[in-house]
Order: sequence, then C-alpha cells, then structure tokens
Amino acid sequence: MILEKFKKKQIAKKSADFSRWYIDTVLQAGLADYTPVKGCIIFRPYGYALWESIQKELDGKIKKMGAKNAYFPSFIPEKLLKREKEHVEGFSPELAVVTIGGGKKLEEPLVVRPTSETIMYEMFAKWIQSWRDLPLKINQWCNVVRWEKRTLPFIRTTEFLWQEGHTAHATHKEALDQVRKAMDAYIELYRQHLALHGVAGYKSASEKFAGAERSVSYEMLMPDGRALQASTSHDLGQNFARAFEVKFQDKEGRTQYVWQTSWGLSTRALGGMIMVHGDDNGLILPPQVAPIQIVVIPIFSDSKGESQVKDFINQIKLQLSGFRVEIDNRETYSPGWKFNEWELKGVPLRRLYQRSRLFVQQNTREVNDYNEFKRIMAGPRGFIRAFWCGNPECENKIKEETKATTRCLPLSAKEEKGKCIYCGEEAHHRWLFAQAY
Amino acid sequence: MILEKFKKKQIAKKSADFSRWYIDTVLQAGLADYTPVKGCIIFRPYGYALWESIQKELDGKIKKMGAKNAYFPSFIPEKLLKREKEHVEGFSPELAVVTIGGGKKLEEPLVVRPTSETIMYEMFAKWIQSWRDLPLKINQWCNVVRWEKRTLPFIRTTEFLWQEGHTAHATHKEALDQVRKAMDAYIELYRQHLALHGVAGYKSASEKFAGAERSVSYEMLMPDGRALQASTSHDLGQNFARAFEVKFQDKEGRTQYVWQTSWGLSTRALGGMIMVHGDDNGLILPPQVAPIQIVVIPIFSDSKGESQVKDFINQIKLQLSGFRVEIDNRETYSPGWKFNEWELKGVPLRRLYQRSRLFVQQNTREVNDYNEFKRIMAGPRGFIRAFWCGNPECENKIKEETKATTRCLPLSAKEEKGKCIYCGEEAHHRWLFAQAY
Repeated sequence: MILEKFKKKQIAKKSADFSRWYIDTVLQAGLADYTPVKGCIIFRPYGYALWESIQKELDGKIKKMGAKNAYFPSFIPEKLLKREKEHVEGFSPELAVVTIGGGKKLEEPLVVRPTSETIMYEMFAKWIQSWRDLPLKINQWCNVVRWEKRTLPFIRTTEFLWQEGHTAHATHKEALDQVRKAMDAYIELYRQHLALHGVAGYKSASEKFAGAERSVSYEMLMPDGRALQASTSHDLGQNFARAFEVKFQDKEGRTQYVWQTSWGLSTRALGGMIMVHGDDNGLILPPQVAPIQIVVIPIFSDSKGESQVKDFINQIKLQLSGFRVEIDNRETYSPGWKFNEWELKGVPLRRLYQRSRLFVQQNTREVNDYNEFKRIMAGPRGFIRAFWCGNPECENKIKEETKATTRCLPLSAKEEKGKCIYCGEEAHHRWLFAQAY
Repeated sequence: MILEKFKKKQIAKKSADFSRWYIDTVLQAGLADYTPVKGCIIFRPYGYALWESIQKELDGKIKKMGAKNAYFPSFIPEKLLKREKEHVEGFSPELAVVTIGGGKKLEEPLVVRPTSETIMYEMFAKWIQSWRDLPLKINQWCNVVRWEKRTLPFIRTTEFLWQEGHTAHATHKEALDQVRKAMDAYIELYRQHLALHGVAGYKSASEKFAGAERSVSYEMLMPDGRALQASTSHDLGQNFARAFEVKFQDKEGRTQYVWQTSWGLSTRALGGMIMVHGDDNGLILPPQVAPIQIVVIPIFSDSKGESQVKDFINQIKLQLSGFRVEIDNRETYSPGWKFNEWELKGVPLRRLYQRSRLFVQQNTREVNDYNEFKRIMAGPRGFIRAFWCGNPECENKIKEETKATTRCLPLSAKEEKGKCIYCGEEAHHRWLFAQAY
C-alpha cells in the first residue's frame, strides 16, 4: 500500500475535461487554494511568485510611462461612489459594504473598493489647480472586491489583486495617447513576458467600463474556445472630471475640466497563462515568469554514488548560474515522484508564444452567415470576425441566441463595406465575437 | 503680490511645536494626505516610494529566512476570529465588519482583517500533516484595518500597510529561534537602512500581542520623549495550534501540535523615520531610503548661460551615475523656491544613525525613586530604566499615575537585584518604561 503522501498526484486530462483539468492543475501545483470565505482564494507561494514576476515586469513599464505608485484607502464612502451615474449603476450589484466599525453602526456605510476612480478623483480635484500640475499619473497595486456569483480561481474571484493606473491630462489628445500607451505596455507584457497572443481593440458601448467614454481591451482565446478579457485601458473623457469637479487653469487663465484615463491588469492574467500553456501533465510556464527554471533531481543507489552525484551537481550548478535552479534533495520522495511533481509545476523550458499565436489564428474564423455563426458558437467556439452594424439591439440578440458577445473592434481593423451578420443592414467593420469568461 | 503657488511652503518649527511640525512636514513634503474616509490617509507617491524602499530591503531579508510570499483573503468569517479567546478579546473593539455583499445581507458577517492569524491557521491545519511539511514559513504584504479612535498619519491610521510573517515549527526551540531571527531582521532594517536606533526586548503580559505566549518588540524614542513600538515578533506557543487544530505526525508517528510565530512591520516605520530625523526645515531622509539622493538646480541669467549650465549639468550627471539624481528644470519656479522645496523633502545627504543613537542614550535614564520617575514623565519623558517586580497591579498603577507603560524588557538586560520602583518588593530586572504612541 502506498501512503497518501507518496501517491503520484493525479490530474484530469486537459484534452478530455478542460474545466476539471484547470481546477486540478491550480490546486495540485500549489498555485491557489479555496478558503472559508465564499468566492475568495488563497494565492499560495508558487502562484504568488508568478504574480510577483508580473508585478516586477509591469511596474517597470508603468514607471517608464511616468506614473508613480501611491496607495489610497480601500474604503469608499457610499456618496462618493454615487457621483458618476453610469459608474455606480455598473458596480452597485457587486459591492461589499462595511456597516459596522469599532463596534458601532456607521453613519455612512463604506464600500470596499471595486475600483478606485471615485476616491482618487475626489483627491485629484484637490491636487490639480493649474496646467503645471498636469499630467498627473498615479498607479496603485492593491486588492479589490467585487461580489461575484460564479467564481473560478484567478479568472473571477470576489477578491483579486491588480494594478490600477489613473491619469489626468490637459487635452483629450494626450489622454488618448495615454490610453494607447497603457495598452501597449499590456500587449508587450502578455506577448514577451507571458508568451500569450491576443487581440487588442475597442469595446462596444454595452461592454465598455461603467463611466468610460471608450474602452480598449486585450482579448485572449482560451483552449475551450471562450474569450478572456485580459486587461483594459479606458478613455474616461471628462465624465468623472465633471462629476468630481477636477478642473485646472490653462496657460491662458481659463478654467477647464481635465481629460482622464484609467487602466488595469489583474491576477486574472495568471488564469489565462495557466489555461493557454498547460498540458495533460499540468502547468507549463514561460521561462521569463517561472519561479524555478531548471530542477536537478539526483539519482543514486549507494552512499559512494551519492557523493559522486553531489559533486557532479555542484559542477552543473556553477554552469547554470544565470538560471533559477532548484536542487531537489528531498530524501523521502522517489525520483519518479519528483519528475511528476515538477512536470505538474511546469518547470521544463519550452517555446511558447508561437504556439499561442497559432492557436488564436487557427481558431479565428471570418463568418458572413448567421447560421454558420450559430453552428460555430454551439460547436468549437473561438473568435468570429463578423460585420456588425453597431446597433445594440443586434448585439443583444446575438448574445441571447449564441451566448457570444462583441469582444472588441480590433485596433488593426480597417474600414470595409459589409452587411450586419444579424440584421443585414450596412456595416463598416468586422468585430471580434466570442463567448467570454 | 505673490501667487499662492509660488509662496515658499511654511512649516512649524520642530523645536517649538513638534506635533504641528510633524503634520506640516507630512503634508507639505507630499508624503501623505487626509481623505474623506475617517482615520485613513493617502500614501502619496513620495511617501509610498519610501515604503517601497523598505519593502524591497525587508522582502530580501524575509526570503533569506526561508519565508515565501502569499496572499490570503482580506475578509475573515466572524466565527474564525472567535476561535482563540484572547485574540478575539484583544481585537473586538477595533473591527470593521462587512454585513452586505452583492446587495444582500450576509448570513455570516465578514471582518476586514486586523491581522491574519485566524484565516491563515485555518489553512495551515489543512496543509500540515507530517513533520515533512515543517517548518512552514509564509509572509504576506497587505493592507489591514483597525478601527482607531485617535489617528495620526503613518503612526496610527485605521487602514495601514504592513507585512505579516507566520511560521509553524515542530519544536518550541525552533519557533523561538524564528522569533529572534525576525526581530534581528527588523533591527538590521531599522539601524542600517533607516538609521534609527531603538531597544529590542520582551513585552510584559499586559502589553503583549493578543493570543501570543510572549512578544518581542523594537522600541524607539521620539523627539517628544514618547516611545514608538516599531515592530513586533511573537512566540505564539501552541495557543493557535490548539484553537485551529494545527497538528502533525512526528518522525515517531505521534500526533503533536505545531509551535507558531508571527511577526510584523508596518508603515508606522515611516512615521518614526520622519519624527526622528527631520529638522526645522522639514524632512531628512537616510541616503539608503531616499527616492532622490541628489538634486541639481540650474541657475542662469540668459540663454547663453543656460546652454553652458546645461552642458555642465550633463557632465555632473555622468559623474553621479551611482546615485539617484534629479535635475530640477521646472521653469516656473525660482532657484530659491526650489532650494526650500527640496530641503523640505529631505534630499540633502547626512549621517544620521549616530545622532539617533546618541539621542536615545541621552534620553534613557536609570531611576530608582518613584518621585523622580513621576517628575521625569511630567517633564522631558524619554526612556526610564527601572526595577519592576512583575506584578501587573504595579504596572497598572504606574500607567494611571504617569501615563508610562512598560515598553519592554531589553534582550540585553542582565539579572540584577533590586526593588520594584512602585511597591518596593524584590525585583530582578530593570524594565524600559515610557509614554507610548
């Protein structure tokens, strides 16, 4: 009989049961664990180390854009959240509310931040007076809470970790430039650091951020054919500036509202990375992000062999000094058990970005017929490039009938002449459709 | 008339009005700002950069101790918090409670973490089964909330940032070793990185952490003669292990409770650093922690001078490549205004630790007479080294009559024969007394 402890860890096959495989991998590789708090997970050390790698890489890019890190309260007075109408409508169903503090009922309830536009811009109004104070670029690494009904580790959890960048500018042009720069940083992070291909583009009015003028997202495709919105960058126009009275005196002495942006990337990135790269043996990690890049597992049969093997390992270790190397000396486990364990934890090196890109290309279909559209969404799913007239009613009907939503209008999309896939009216762009996480 | 914007920033003199000076410095140097949320502050970029410097330095030390970073939910179910009796009694008056989630009243209220022992050890019980799983060393960088009545930026705020380390061991000896190692890391951080002298020692039973067997703290002395508890490391014994059933099978197959420790350092460290080092001109920063170490302020009278000065600055910059240098090219401010601004922000280099140490030495008094004790606490305050018999009643009376509490029994204290400063009974150690923040 083999003790529980020494049993080879078992996970479902990715090809056979994708959902089960994902949960198995996340739990068995020690990336996360469930908690007694509904919808919240623990980021265990191996999972948190992946997040630290993303943080380090992205933080450098954010600082290069001229944004500086700060920290704002995690509690937001309810009345502040209500200032921007669309914003509060969008977030109201998802809020966690503190009503008791220090043993007493609070006069005004405090919302646990679902995002920090409102608390930040209340302060921006105080800090910004003249054109000299612009642009103001603030970034924050923090936890946020959104009360979610259906949760999945990393992909959608009640509490998650993210960075949120917030900027204020003198002109709309400058703000639009910032929206694009933030998205470029995300694209670079996903492609070069995480080896994850995706499509960047504009969200439709119904899918944009609550309170934004326009949103840009990076949409990735998961192996089950569903899309994952992997980061967003928003042109907030002057919507919040008007709600929070964020004004400045321009060089000519006129009082104007600022133009604002916000942009964020969350621990959801980890979910996408696990889903896309992993295989039947478990996790596969891009070398840049892997906490351990190479594992050395000593095998010997007697004590003389042991000392020879150890000498040899010390030599190897010197030669590998540029890599993150782990020597697995645990005496209580067999080499076979260790091979399985490290395979599950995704240590061996691979080239991954080309594969991710190929998968997206092979699963992106140009469709001109609604019946075909429906067949694809009932079958293999994936991205569909189809003409849409821009009418929210068509968008809504498509969602009802196929579960597919507009993911984005790719930044690379050119104007073409076509007919809406749903109503047949004139359309000018092919949008990207998919079922989303 | 000078525009508000160009007025030299004014702060109170440190020597004349210490409390006012502290608030002026924190606000005017752009370290923090008040918020619409009672008792919460914003860590503005210049203040947050100081915290980032501490994080980077301390994170390296923590990883060297073998602890790994992770992230646990910020919400704790009320029933978990109630498991350890002393712990819940200590923290109950300070809790913020979420009672509404997603628009509905929660069946069980969630406490916003004041510290994470309970949520973590619930998981430790699941993760630890055998001696092979020990030691388990987890660290977390996060925000915590304690509902405070009187707040002061950095020193005591309702929400603050910290790291909390939590370990589980097979033996008490190993746990005690960890308690000491964590404190040694804090001492090193304070002395070498922040140039802040202090005294490390054991807390009395009434001042220890709620639920701990014994606590060690680092006590610093502020310029107004009051003590600041600047970090703590706790021997939790088996108190939480019993409450949360954290057990393991030892090598002989016997089931035993683990021995635990926890230790933390918070953004309060910034408050101590500002208070101790600053002078009448504002902030003074230790070179290691200063976000900007050298500022170059160009002065010229015409455009020809301008190009000469700029060439010269470029030369200087090359020579200073090992330092964090800022060239202040802002055209709208005069050189004089800039000098004042950077002085306030504490940029010029100084040697600071010797001064901090001297201040502590000069303000630590050995006292054997209770009347003298009272005179000192009504006057210059500072640390008092006095015999105490160990009776909590004496400790309590001294607190009532002089506002001074036992800060710690210094680790370096030797056993001596003496009489309790309050009751005159036999005493074996000189404790450190002070009025505390």
